[in-house]
Amino acid sequence: MKNSRVNKVLEGMMREGLSQMIITSPASIFYLTGKWIHPGERMIALYINKNGNHKMVINRLFPVYEDLGVEMIWYEDTENPIDHLNKCIDKNEILGIDKDWPAKFLIQLINSNVAKGFVNGSPIIDRVRMIKDAEEIEIMKASSKINDAVMLKLWNNLEVGKSEKYYVGLLQELYESEGASGFSFSPIIATSPNGADPHHGTGKDLIKDGDSIVLDIGGKYNSYCSDMTRTVFIGKEPSKEHADIYNIVKSANEKAISIIKEGVKFSDIDNAARNLIKDAGYGEYFTHRTGHSIGIEVHDFGDVSGVNHEEVKAGMIFSVEPGIYLKDNIGVRIEDLVLVTKDGCEILNSVTKEIVVL
Amino acid sequence: MKNSRVNKVLEGMMREGLSQMIITSPASIFYLTGKWIHPGERMIALYINKNGNHKMVINRLFPVYEDLGVEMIWYEDTENPIDHLNKCIDKNEILGIDKDWPAKFLIQLINSNVAKGFVNGSPIIDRVRMIKDAEEIEIMKASSKINDAVMLKLWNNLEVGKSEKYYVGLLQELYESEGASGFSFSPIIATSPNGADPHHGTGKDLIKDGDSIVLDIGGKYNSYCSDMTRTVFIGKEPSKEHADIYNIVKSANEKAISIIKEGVKFSDIDNAARNLIKDAGYGEYFTHRTGHSIGIEVHDFGDVSGVNHEEVKAGMIFSVEPGIYLKDNIGVRIEDLVLVTKDGCEILNSVTKEIVVL
Repeated sequence: MKNSRVNKVLEGMMREGLSQMIITSPASIFYLTGKWIHPGERMIALYINKNGNHKMVINRLFPVYEDLGVEMIWYEDTENPIDHLNKCIDKNEILGIDKDWPAKFLIQLINSNVAKGFVNGSPIIDRVRMIKDAEEIEIMKASSKINDAVMLKLWNNLEVGKSEKYYVGLLQELYESEGASGFSFSPIIATSPNGADPHHGTGKDLIKDGDSIVLDIGGKYNSYCSDMTRTVFIGKEPSKEHADIYNIVKSANEKAISIIKEGVKFSDIDNAARNLIKDAGYGEYFTHRTGHSIGIEVHDFGDVSGVNHEEVKAGMIFSVEPGIYLKDNIGVRIEDLVLVTKDGCEILNSVTKEIVVL
Repeated sequence: MKNSRVNKVLEGMMREGLSQMIITSPASIFYLTGKWIHPGERMIALYINKNGNHKMVINRLFPVYEDLGVEMIWYEDTENPIDHLNKCIDKNEILGIDKDWPAKFLIQLINSNVAKGFVNGSPIIDRVRMIKDAEEIEIMKASSKINDAVMLKLWNNLEVGKSEKYYVGLLQELYESEGASGFSFSPIIATSPNGADPHHGTGKDLIKDGDSIVLDIGGKYNSYCSDMTRTVFIGKEPSKEHADIYNIVKSANEKAISIIKEGVKFSDIDNAARNLIKDAGYGEYFTHRTGHSIGIEVHDFGDVSGVNHEEVKAGMIFSVEPGIYLKDNIGVRIEDLVLVTKDGCEILNSVTKEIVVL
């Protein structure tokens, strides 16, 4: 077990008056134990108790050879894992439950009256995971460094006549050759005017001379995600209108980043980007939140949005990715990951944000 | 609403003494309404009541323009959908819950005491979905017909020196050109000896002269899945050992299919295939269940396995896919989908199961 992380979760539980909880998300189990286990439909539960008698209930089909520093309770496929889990739980106390735990398991706990009550315990661990420790920061930086290298190689390979989909295959090879283990999400390679749909994936459309292309890509390195977007122009300089839109988005990205430091609210960061775009007359075309937390999962808990009035803290890493989307015309998005520090922030990406014509 | 399907679910509820349930799986909501809605993390619930006052609680972000024949209760992103759902529920009755409903929602229901109790209601609807109606049978047949055509075209394109991964891209195009909307699962293209791992996906390995290749592929047509496996030989006839193994697997596939008719147990079908392979001396190398139900989902509820002693019924569709896996040597799997009838079964695939050398 990663004791400093477990202790932070226990502190969070104390603050919430919770003495026990079960953690079932593979990502959170990895965070606390250093071990990825993918049990699929089968039950896995890391039981955490304020008294320190933590236990892991796990199917024998997923052998763990290393000592995770927690008592392992193995069950067979022919047994009901809930019987084993029930024995761990203090029936006189409320039990925290993982937000995504399937009802088929929770209903059994409810009906066997094994706890005084049930609450959603995930916000406690999700909030701990938002603030990266030194080990995580180092990996996140390395992961984004790989993403920088992949983006530049992708630029070198963009060619008129090749399809969006072609670059998905190429990106797979590029991430592997740079030491990443794969994508952190399905890459978005959106030629004109597909880029005007912020959720366009990749299709059969071919790169054309004069295109603007939205490139939203990320890889996984040591289980930590990168995520960056650049919008580039092919063959010729953008028109005055497109260059203006590009520079507004770039300014919004830079403005939002410029105000980030410990104590600023997520909503302030969102507003900084949004107001700049609004003042330039494109407010209605910036149709999504400004960013999201990132770490073990590409969308970790915590949005950079107008309704999240929580203050950011040193060690948080999230994306800043304003955009302008004009249907049938152009889409521009520029995204960096930032690490919050006491008096500012560190940008994890170093790829230029100036207009690039390839 | 598809009334005959809803009525079958209501009959199942009556048999279980359940007067109300919520259905939250997008696949089951599609099955009952004909409408796919992908709400992602947001809550959606189709509330079904024996008295007929069905309701759908749904986020405004997922507009439905057609009349689904059920009262729609819309909520905004700023509201808590559970408040709306609570108003539908009869607090004096037990409530059936979808097996995969996330705990974050169920905990709120529990803590607001909106029902007399909670049970896993999914088996009721899963069992209805196991028996396909006429409309579904027609689509499943068309879906498998497309899979037949794609398999033959894939054979025509297998070439020494091309990678497993290359064929994923090709398959995407083949399914689209045959009228399917995509894969029903990530295709398995396993050259030797990768085929000896029944869960090998696709990698960078190249087809070699003399290979045996496991091809496990399926597409989606009108939201219904196909799934078929063939194992083919490249360039030269298989060795005596490999031809023998191939023919044992083929006989196991045919033996299992030969005993299928209404009233036979799933476990009998599994045993028929397993015993044939055991008697031929390869029992320990057939390492998985014989098959799985299939329909809207590629793995519908209901395994063809030695521990499932339920009787099959006319209208059920499942796979029969025995295999033999010899590490570092060869893997052979032969899979068809079958439709159970009163006195036999209909095989949905027509691609030859004889040894094929390409």
